[in-house]
Amino acid sequence: MKFFDDLRVGDVFVLGRHVFGADEIKAFAGRFDPQPFHLDEQAAAQSHFGALVASGWHTAVIWMRLMVDFRRSAAEQSVARGEPVAKVGPALGFRDLRWMKPVYVGDTVDYRSEVIETRVSNSRPGFGLMTVRASGVNQKGEPVISFISTAFVERRGTPP
Amino acid sequence: MKFFDDLRVGDVFVLGRHVFGADEIKAFAGRFDPQPFHLDEQAAAQSHFGALVASGWHTAVIWMRLMVDFRRSAAEQSVARGEPVAKVGPALGFRDLRWMKPVYVGDTVDYRSEVIETRVSNSRPGFGLMTVRASGVNQKGEPVISFISTAFVERRGTPP
Repeated sequence: MKFFDDLRVGDVFVLGRHVFGADEIKAFAGRFDPQPFHLDEQAAAQSHFGALVASGWHTAVIWMRLMVDFRRSAAEQSVARGEPVAKVGPALGFRDLRWMKPVYVGDTVDYRSEVIETRVSNSRPGFGLMTVRASGVNQKGEPVISFISTAFVERRGTPP
Repeated sequence: MKFFDDLRVGDVFVLGRHVFGADEIKAFAGRFDPQPFHLDEQAAAQSHFGALVASGWHTAVIWMRLMVDFRRSAAEQSVARGEPVAKVGPALGFRDLRWMKPVYVGDTVDYRSEVIETRVSNSRPGFGLMTVRASGVNQKGEPVISFISTAFVERRGTPP
């Protein structure tokens, strides 16, 4: 992860893609969102979705997973170059989450985050606040999920 | 679930409580949010949290699970009384999700949703839009999560 001072509005993090399989859709839903159209092909065929779809929460947490993997990979690359690694603090929350289209079995979702605001933190010296617009787009180019997330990112020159 | 016409601003759905155990915290995080303070007691002790904490997404999806269970139970009670059951459509998204406090191993979170707005849907005849403020409070009475969610709820007198 870049240090706060090196982030610019418009920076894009390309997080990677995920193919939503039937088994994982059902496993997630069985635990966290057990509605018939996430669990059973027959029931889903008779729902307004017309076929099995992923829980919207499942679509969201896959972004989280890819974001954590992206940060780890970026940190490893910094270490390999002998550069310091910026700490990323906890997210404070997020806003304006929208599910624009259902995610069907076999859909591939491409996730990215774009920096839309940066500001220095008053509450936490040594850190800045990075706000990103997170999004996922399916293989037809249709946005399926979008939300805005804010997290702390370390500034350069923080005492160890 | 009540029909849209019977919902009132101020109605509260008491969804139930959840105790966050170490094993499920680690299992969720291992799949969706593999950060050290969600996965490992030693690493968490050295983090700013000071001990193992649940992923904020985990705290959120438990609300979803309890909400689905609540709706199902309400539907079963309606059927048992010989009353019709209101359909609840998909959520459109949510807004203003905030994680106010960490959820530590062994914390008990009480979840509820309060109706804060109702309006007729222009896009979907036969349904209204219900907006709730969802919240979770720990055993010390401290809010740990809050967000606002909007979903379609069937109106009375919809043709079958």
